[in-house]
Amino acid sequence: MLYLYAPQDAEQLAPLLRQALPNIDLAVWPQQVDDTAVRYAVVWNPPEGFFTRFSRLEAVFALGAGVDRLLARADLPATLPVIRLTDAGMAQQMAEYALYGVLRYQRQFDVYQRQQAERRWQPQPPRLAHEIRVSVLGLGAIGAVVATTLAGLGYTVSGWSRSPRELPGVACRHGSAALDTLLAETDVLVGVLPSTPETRGLLDRDRLVRLPHGAALINAGRGDQLDQAALLDLLDAGQLRFAQLDVFASEPLAAEHPLWVHPSVTVTPHIAAITLPGPAAQQIAANLRALRSGTAPEGLVDRRRTY
Amino acid sequence: MLYLYAPQDAEQLAPLLRQALPNIDLAVWPQQVDDTAVRYAVVWNPPEGFFTRFSRLEAVFALGAGVDRLLARADLPATLPVIRLTDAGMAQQMAEYALYGVLRYQRQFDVYQRQQAERRWQPQPPRLAHEIRVSVLGLGAIGAVVATTLAGLGYTVSGWSRSPRELPGVACRHGSAALDTLLAETDVLVGVLPSTPETRGLLDRDRLVRLPHGAALINAGRGDQLDQAALLDLLDAGQLRFAQLDVFASEPLAAEHPLWVHPSVTVTPHIAAITLPGPAAQQIAANLRALRSGTAPEGLVDRRRTY
Repeated sequence: MLYLYAPQDAEQLAPLLRQALPNIDLAVWPQQVDDTAVRYAVVWNPPEGFFTRFSRLEAVFALGAGVDRLLARADLPATLPVIRLTDAGMAQQMAEYALYGVLRYQRQFDVYQRQQAERRWQPQPPRLAHEIRVSVLGLGAIGAVVATTLAGLGYTVSGWSRSPRELPGVACRHGSAALDTLLAETDVLVGVLPSTPETRGLLDRDRLVRLPHGAALINAGRGDQLDQAALLDLLDAGQLRFAQLDVFASEPLAAEHPLWVHPSVTVTPHIAAITLPGPAAQQIAANLRALRSGTAPEGLVDRRRTY
Repeated sequence: MLYLYAPQDAEQLAPLLRQALPNIDLAVWPQQVDDTAVRYAVVWNPPEGFFTRFSRLEAVFALGAGVDRLLARADLPATLPVIRLTDAGMAQQMAEYALYGVLRYQRQFDVYQRQQAERRWQPQPPRLAHEIRVSVLGLGAIGAVVATTLAGLGYTVSGWSRSPRELPGVACRHGSAALDTLLAETDVLVGVLPSTPETRGLLDRDRLVRLPHGAALINAGRGDQLDQAALLDLLDAGQLRFAQLDVFASEPLAAEHPLWVHPSVTVTPHIAAITLPGPAAQQIAANLRALRSGTAPEGLVDRRRTY
């Protein structure tokens, strides 16, 4: 039996999962079932004790690409296979989110917005796409689409990841030393990294100051990667031009947080890449079939790497 | 002899034209020359009397894609061939400008901007690219790139032009009746039409009200196509969601104009697609060689159609 815990999305997801997995018994929270009959669970933020209740689980499917919060739970058995979503419609959304910020930077919509407030008609010297150096941090299923989409539109794109990658039209680098060099050659930094012990605090003050004067930051990975206080200092000092942030150290962003009101900050409420029920159901079904036939599912989380 | 009148761009353009046309004598305003020796002119907004002074001109090259103001001049001989730029780097810029507005609409950055001002963390239901119907008015060298770029990113794109066109991935329509139908099926209207007797006043009140409730308008063609007062009324009434305007009935937009301060209007100072010296010099040189070899230059203006 497959148990679905996703109160907000169950209405859309349940029929899609039933259709994609006609031979699997599906139960939907808060349905009462024989807990020991549940072998698989599809979850988004299940309540504490969820994994204690379903003691005979063979695998859990996360309804998202980031599983840091799930893995941090005390009730999650250390050996239970966790399968996350690796694209499921999120990659294009993330590419769109990044592209908006890159266009805002290149085409200076932020500058024209300020000029409009002053009723000032003042064309700025144009900058062409190839003159803008965009660096994408994270080159997994999502980051790869972000990087190649931007490269396809003519931007000069570099990518950075933990382990070596190759992507058409993207200068790929990896490792800590390479990051420091890359930052100094970046006009727009796009973060789509998962939260792991290695990425936590990655964009600290020392790294942020390596960005050239007037660079911009787009973060849609995880909020715990960014030193928000350092970012605000660099924006105030005019060292960085703007930030477009979808993720925060604490979410929802507290009403009194200075990021809300900073004139150079765009705040979005963790919407850069939303799980889409259709593609998510398809990917979960394919991964469940893979598990049952003894092949490796896509998105099987390496509990040591945490993604 | 080729005479260049482009005070703002001459410093960049003159060496590029000399390099591209090594066998042509180039004079640059305000240089004194034997006016009767000048056969060709490259111009941007030349002073009144310019064409009377150079009475033996065989052709004039405009440093832009729109030639409505040039053609309206009393001193321009009616039979003098006018050659405009047809892309010269402007098409990609226009695609970027349109894409920014389309992304703003699809990804609801305008909504999140208002929520940010209220410090409100409220995810909106996502809309996918293919759910957004974008209609591009004008399918010349520039409009075609705008339409196919948007289609390539997954938007549902229609195009409209005076005469029939075919473009991969774009539903092309033409003629006045088709426009009325198209407007009713448009989420984001993108105008990149030239100014001609037929396009002047095209986006009047009657046509704008055909757009569905909540549609957006991006105009980067010519300002005389749009009824600005009707647009403001429809924005005030909440019938239209926002407008991103690069061109205006009168430019620069007067400081007291209500468009500057309307919360749903983005004003940019005619920068959507700027003539780039490099590509412009290349295209002018190729067209001049075509003229001298007796073949038709690209961008030869049909004085009757006015583009």
